[in-house]
Amino acid sequence: MNILEIIEKKRDKKELTKQEIEFFIKGYIKEEITDYQASALIMAIFINGMTKEETTNLSLSMANSGEILDLSKLNKTIVDKHSTGGVGDKVSICLLPLVASLGVPVAKMSGRGLGFTGGTVDKMQSIPGYQTEININTFLENVEKIGISMISQTMDLAPADKKLYALRDSISCVESLPLISSSIMSKKIANGADKIVLDVTVGKGAFMKKIEEARQLARQMIEIGKLANKETVCILTNMDEPLGYAVGNNLEVIEAIEFLKGNMPNDVKEVVLELGAYMLKLAKLGDNIEENKEKMLKNIYNGKALKKLKEMIQNQSGDVTYIEDTSKFEKAKYIREVKSTKNGYIQEINAESVGRLACSLGAGRIRKEDNIDNSVGIILNKKVSEQVKKDDILAYIYSNNQDKSKEVEDKLQDIILIEDKEIKRLSSVIEIIK
Amino acid sequence: MNILEIIEKKRDKKELTKQEIEFFIKGYIKEEITDYQASALIMAIFINGMTKEETTNLSLSMANSGEILDLSKLNKTIVDKHSTGGVGDKVSICLLPLVASLGVPVAKMSGRGLGFTGGTVDKMQSIPGYQTEININTFLENVEKIGISMISQTMDLAPADKKLYALRDSISCVESLPLISSSIMSKKIANGADKIVLDVTVGKGAFMKKIEEARQLARQMIEIGKLANKETVCILTNMDEPLGYAVGNNLEVIEAIEFLKGNMPNDVKEVVLELGAYMLKLAKLGDNIEENKEKMLKNIYNGKALKKLKEMIQNQSGDVTYIEDTSKFEKAKYIREVKSTKNGYIQEINAESVGRLACSLGAGRIRKEDNIDNSVGIILNKKVSEQVKKDDILAYIYSNNQDKSKEVEDKLQDIILIEDKEIKRLSSVIEIIK
Repeated sequence: MNILEIIEKKRDKKELTKQEIEFFIKGYIKEEITDYQASALIMAIFINGMTKEETTNLSLSMANSGEILDLSKLNKTIVDKHSTGGVGDKVSICLLPLVASLGVPVAKMSGRGLGFTGGTVDKMQSIPGYQTEININTFLENVEKIGISMISQTMDLAPADKKLYALRDSISCVESLPLISSSIMSKKIANGADKIVLDVTVGKGAFMKKIEEARQLARQMIEIGKLANKETVCILTNMDEPLGYAVGNNLEVIEAIEFLKGNMPNDVKEVVLELGAYMLKLAKLGDNIEENKEKMLKNIYNGKALKKLKEMIQNQSGDVTYIEDTSKFEKAKYIREVKSTKNGYIQEINAESVGRLACSLGAGRIRKEDNIDNSVGIILNKKVSEQVKKDDILAYIYSNNQDKSKEVEDKLQDIILIEDKEIKRLSSVIEIIK
Repeated sequence: MNILEIIEKKRDKKELTKQEIEFFIKGYIKEEITDYQASALIMAIFINGMTKEETTNLSLSMANSGEILDLSKLNKTIVDKHSTGGVGDKVSICLLPLVASLGVPVAKMSGRGLGFTGGTVDKMQSIPGYQTEININTFLENVEKIGISMISQTMDLAPADKKLYALRDSISCVESLPLISSSIMSKKIANGADKIVLDVTVGKGAFMKKIEEARQLARQMIEIGKLANKETVCILTNMDEPLGYAVGNNLEVIEAIEFLKGNMPNDVKEVVLELGAYMLKLAKLGDNIEENKEKMLKNIYNGKALKKLKEMIQNQSGDVTYIEDTSKFEKAKYIREVKSTKNGYIQEINAESVGRLACSLGAGRIRKEDNIDNSVGIILNKKVSEQVKKDDILAYIYSNNQDKSKEVEDKLQDIILIEDKEIKRLSSVIEIIK
């Protein structure tokens, strides 16, 4: 077997065997296969595609290229949750303590944010004292002891995926279904979960702009899950406008805490309940989706979900008084109101644009080494379909720089599209694919 | 403009502009564009193809990536001849002195051989004393003085082509029509000729195995020639069996000298006359192809062509006594006969296999740095379609190693296919495309 024959096969639209894909991934990690050879193969995959079997084998090979988290010691069915990314996405912080409070063991490793979407780890770190860099044994002990632990990805999971992603990024080969799906699934497989619930975001602030693309991605990932023996359910959710009202680390954490106190924005509520209901189902804690949602709501209203969040934060040295009193979170120096210049209905709030604006305030990273300012961000006051009158407040800008704040205001005025015509709010859960 | 956009366009099967192709070639030569980026673009070109305009622009950009030989000082219409390669191909050595004797100025730079096909420069160097590494001014003076000079490619012509070819070779992207045709034409354009006659070989010992592929390649190169203002004629010739009888440097040079003395194998004769007749036509020395062929035959029979060869060799310090008496050429130590084991007709003598066998005797290079043994090779005694009886001599193996010689004999027995059925000899000139 040699790399030239493998490149030639894919170039000629033939199917690669499991052995050939493994040969490529192993050789690439060992640097026996060069970047330019990997590059040719990736472009051939981009153009000629991959079968379900090839995509699964690619996922498995990439997962096996590094350490694999062994969760079998926990002796329970572990259900992982993953999102393909969005703006204002605080779902994990609302959802995971909630399902943990219902008995779903949560062993969650998250990545940091890059670009216009934030990362769960960054958000959790805005709670003073909360430790995200803890060793694997302590992590597993936490899960055994209190049923939940959320940490940052400390292990070298799927290094081949990391290396290939960087290459794809520098040769215009990111947007390929088999490459995206195997990239996501390789990390999920390495994460050691038994079953997976995937939040596949769709729309202006998501990676997949169109529903049909998202459906295809979902089907591919489910297929990989099936072949890799990890039952997978995909929930397609709307990411045209930001999820909830807050964008920015402290602001989103506060919104998540408020969620668990029962103050649930409609869209966040729909997404959290749907994902959670399927997590409960996969964990064999309830087959009926509607009943599962009710159980979840009950644990929000009776305070058990919030209690689980506090327990986890305390267990990882975080200051729980911030949960009890969210006004303790550091606020940005300047809070600027964005007011409507006319009457009408909000037609659109482009999530990607809002994400980029928040990033420009300091809420996100442009480069890996950038620091995040937890206090800044944007809070929407109105969402798509709401009626507004001239001078109504559309949003608040939290900034530590007044000039920047003015600039963001002008841009937000353009981003929040208001027209005369009435528009119906669509459900945030678009479709379930399993 | 940036390379990511260029890769993306070709990935999505869009046409690249002249500026984009130039940006790529210039950036690649300056190493501002990496190998892995070039690799992705080349694979996208391989799979998605290129239009005529793109292929022409690629040829021109690669030609312009280095020096361009300026033949305008000669003040004549310069017609270049090029072959896409074959086994036993001594056409240049027969043809160029012949057309020079009829007034076509010949300023020929040739490459060295690599793999199973030999290079003209290597063959010419087997004439003791003959200098192929001479400077450009002397080269041009030679052409002015005696109408012909054949040297090795001393200038750095089309370095981008060289760099891209090496890359293509290491990513399974050699066999692409736009890439092959632009590679050939970039060197021809850099070679400074006004018009070009191309010997496009087809068959088992050629790069193009099928006539339809060869036709497409020919049409592409003619189109490039047209757009680059270099009239181009392609002659498709058969390369299923070796051309002529001899394969190996000394052996081929002797066959070429004998050719100019009037001992012309049928196939070599057909190819040389056809190519030469078109060279004369393009040089405006005769419009009628059949009359041109007669003029050529006349200059073979009256000795003028041979005289021109001697003149050139003398002019470049070669020992002309070798031309007068070819028995002076060094012979290999062992000459082994290959005898037929049965009666029948020769159906096939796979040119590539014969080329590889000659190479294994030391007649060719496997790697660039290999030395060539001029004395070794193979002389066929029978060609395809000829009738043979058991114990007739099929070929002679010239070797300096007896074990090797035996091994080659066994393999030749398999390569020279003899069956009962009669078979008709086909013309070596398949088609003219212009």
